Amino acid sequence: MFVRNTWYVAAWADELADKPLARRVCDEAVVMFRDKSGKAAAIADRCCHRGTPLSLGEIVDGGLQCGYHGMVFDGMGKCVHIPGQEKIPQSASVPAYPLVERDHFLWIWMGEATNADPARIPDVSYHNDPRWPERHGRLAIAGSYLLMIDNLMDLTHVGYVHRRTVGGNPAQHVDARMTVAPTQDGLHFTRWMLNSPPPPTYVKAYGFKGGIDRWQDFEWLAPSNVRQWNGAKDAGTGAYEGNREGGFQFRVFHALTPETETSCNYFFATANGWAPHDDAALDLFFRESRETFVEDKEIVERQQARLSEFGEDWLVDIVSDATRIRMRRFLNQMLDNERRLAAE
Amino acid sequence: MFVRNTWYVAAWADELADKPLARRVCDEAVVMFRDKSGKAAAIADRCCHRGTPLSLGEIVDGGLQCGYHGMVFDGMGKCVHIPGQEKIPQSASVPAYPLVERDHFLWIWMGEATNADPARIPDVSYHNDPRWPERHGRLAIAGSYLLMIDNLMDLTHVGYVHRRTVGGNPAQHVDARMTVAPTQDGLHFTRWMLNSPPPPTYVKAYGFKGGIDRWQDFEWLAPSNVRQWNGAKDAGTGAYEGNREGGFQFRVFHALTPETETSCNYFFATANGWAPHDDAALDLFFRESRETFVEDKEIVERQQARLSEFGEDWLVDIVSDATRIRMRRFLNQMLDNERRLAAE
Amino acid sequence: MFVRNTWYVAAWADELADKPLARRVCDEAVVMFRDKSGKAAAIADRCCHRGTPLSLGEIVDGGLQCGYHGMVFDGMGKCVHIPGQEKIPQSASVPAYPLVERDHFLWIWMGEATNADPARIPDVSYHNDPRWPERHGRLAIAGSYLLMIDNLMDLTHVGYVHRRTVGGNPAQHVDARMTVAPTQDGLHFTRWMLNSPPPPTYVKAYGFKGGIDRWQDFEWLAPSNVRQWNGAKDAGTGAYEGNREGGFQFRVFHALTPETETSCNYFFATANGWAPHDDAALDLFFRESRETFVEDKEIVERQQARLSEFGEDWLVDIVSDATRIRMRRFLNQMLDNERRLAAE
Repeated sequence: MFVRNTWYVAAWADELADKPLARRVCDEAVVMFRDKSGKAAAIADRCCHRGTPLSLGEIVDGGLQCGYHGMVFDGMGKCVHIPGQEKIPQSASVPAYPLVERDHFLWIWMGEATNADPARIPDVSYHNDPRWPERHGRLAIAGSYLLMIDNLMDLTHVGYVHRRTVGGNPAQHVDARMTVAPTQDGLHFTRWMLNSPPPPTYVKAYGFKGGIDRWQDFEWLAPSNVRQWNGAKDAGTGAYEGNREGGFQFRVFHALTPETETSCNYFFATANGWAPHDDAALDLFFRESRETFVEDKEIVERQQARLSEFGEDWLVDIVSDATRIRMRRFLNQMLDNERRLAAE
Repeated sequence: MFVRNTWYVAAWADELADKPLARRVCDEAVVMFRDKSGKAAAIADRCCHRGTPLSLGEIVDGGLQCGYHGMVFDGMGKCVHIPGQEKIPQSASVPAYPLVERDHFLWIWMGEATNADPARIPDVSYHNDPRWPERHGRLAIAGSYLLMIDNLMDLTHVGYVHRRTVGGNPAQHVDARMTVAPTQDGLHFTRWMLNSPPPPTYVKAYGFKGGIDRWQDFEWLAPSNVRQWNGAKDAGTGAYEGNREGGFQFRVFHALTPETETSCNYFFATANGWAPHDDAALDLFFRESRETFVEDKEIVERQQARLSEFGEDWLVDIVSDATRIRMRRFLNQMLDNERRLAAE
Repeated sequence: MFVRNTWYVAAWADELADKPLARRVCDEAVVMFRDKSGKAAAIADRCCHRGTPLSLGEIVDGGLQCGYHGMVFDGMGKCVHIPGQEKIPQSASVPAYPLVERDHFLWIWMGEATNADPARIPDVSYHNDPRWPERHGRLAIAGSYLLMIDNLMDLTHVGYVHRRTVGGNPAQHVDARMTVAPTQDGLHFTRWMLNSPPPPTYVKAYGFKGGIDRWQDFEWLAPSNVRQWNGAKDAGTGAYEGNREGGFQFRVFHALTPETETSCNYFFATANGWAPHDDAALDLFFRESRETFVEDKEIVERQQARLSEFGEDWLVDIVSDATRIRMRRFLNQMLDNERRLAAE
């Protein structure tokens, strides 16, 4: 069961050049392509003639041409050419999905096309801000996007899963001062670890020598995106009191797009807010961040295997689940709303 | 659902030497072997004692010996030896399948053995004609044999799928002059492309320099074989008017034998009718032909994946499907006949 | 369907050091670990918090710590620590399985813990006897443990499956003099091959030059273990009459522990009773024995595939199945007893 009337990240804009790109979103086979003018579109990746994936074809004038018998489909999924045949049947079309290119992403809408309002696309406009240059990547995760969002909603895992990267002393993560608040689009929480030892990645990237005041600022944008703003300064230099200027700070955007019920694509971008002109610094930090997300992937994939086999009825909530549980409640409400609207 | 009362190609005769050969035909596990006299037989590939594949065993006097406890089965599937036991129970036998070696093939009959008339084996006797030396091969296809026959019944695909081999300008394939006629055993069609550019493979194999008159002559021998006779001559040298002598010509026999509902074995032979004494020419052309069939394989396997997931109800027929549809109707009639006979 | 109220070999004791070890037993996901004192325990390999395999975690004071959010479980499966939380809910626990370290094995009990009497563990105490030094290994078998026990109950397979190792002339195995008797724990049979040619492994290991008097002494310890004592002496030197002293002799312990309905772990140990101080002799013989068991694995895995596809109703028993059938009857009785007790 997926929320459908929402914008999902389907791809990085730079993944789509002059070849079609196949991707599964909410268990539908989608192909994206740019027409000759460069405009991106998304349609079902199966020719209505004989079912061949259109992603095996090529881009021609007028749209995407099936590589089997040469039918051409435009970005609305309408067949516009059948070789050797003048009349094109009304039924010759494939489903199309609204697709918007914005902030380095291609955003796709898997629900009712008439509801697809681009104003509801999550704001990642800092990707266009030269003060926040970004590097990005993608990981295929053999686990539900829900488990990946769970992961981001309970950061007590950082000390255990990421000890070699952004973790460190588990106790500091467990004891962080945390405030959570609902937002229109989901949840917002902030965590502070005052006068705490800097984790390995922070030392490598910024050169901290002593204790730091460190914050984690997370916005869950329901159902599947998280906008993160982290930072750290030398302990006692005023960050907690409100002066976050200077020091080490970065943003991460996490887009966890459902592929199937038990797999997702993890799109992530790391933005350098501490040394915007230092490409090498961003490269290093991006590599460390990616390694961090691979650590999450390994845990979540093994977790998924257990939950797929044993269900979830036997699981026991603990105190650190509080935000995760609020997230799941919000999301179940979204699903209920969709079901109710669909039934009307 | 497979047509059972028909002859399928089970193997190339030269695939079967002094070792048993396992192959799945119409979703049955079959083992073929030659007895000490060289006569080939086909029986179920599972010992009636403990289920072990007989293909793990070895050929002994009297038949095929199971490699587990030594029981021996003859070519009729009858157990003829049980180690340490004099009396052989009546029930000690495995299913046997009529098998005929002819024209370089081993033909198998998966239906009622009493109906297995070798006179109904498709005629590929030109394989024994020194004017048509052949090279042959096999490809495992992760797609239904029906999709492969479909492929051969709609040659408008040639311009798209085979542009690097026997294709070329798509329009010439779409606009070919085509005549189709039913036969007792299936369908026969001929296509002509007059004064057309020679495709890459024809240029490599024969050295055409200008436009050619090219023909494709296809006989579908229901349910699963296609006998093809293609050729080309310099444009305007009389081929279309009936003089096919000289020039470039070749025959291909395509046997698409069902393995499971969604896979098949593709046996193909290319026969050199333009330079029968030139082995190197045949080698080159065989390699190009095999490459052509790999191109088909890649399309069909991806098509199968889509049809397995989404069914076929949403597919839309186009004009070029006409022959394919006739083929499917003929085949459905065969299946209906079998069902009716089975119910009597 | 597995017998649960019995001791299975879960691992070799030396497989378990300072890391947790994951293994599937009777289709349950188990993790074994040694606490800081070295005592081994077995609990369910899925954290009761979010389902993550505990085998991804690490051993800490107090037990095994989940690698995701840091919960710690003791050897009884009880959660003894939740980071950041003082009160531990009663429900925070995972199933635990009695585990006993003995005779180089870790023995696990998958049934009612209250019935787990270590006195019922099969006696392999010769593993502690310097006159019987042993080498051991493990093979993952993609076949039911039942098929592997079947294999050991019908040694007429030895001449066919193991011709390159411990087999040789099939007839001698088929014609062996065999006596079988029930025991309290299963079945016991002895086979003699008098004045028979020594098989390749025996020649390599001991240097036999002429005919031998060879015996096979097998005890099936229901449901899943076999204790074997084999030997050979030069023909006519009195072994059959009762003097087994001297000559070539060895013991093998076979533990076939169910993993799933169609797979098992094969633990085997070969003990050198002919030259206890000769490590090289044991190494050679162990390698040959392992090769023998790989031969069984190859047969049984292919057999399993056929039985999984075609069922077993069509199978035909032969004379050499007699002991195998007794074994299966005994085992079905055990299963019936368990079912009856469970229903009470």
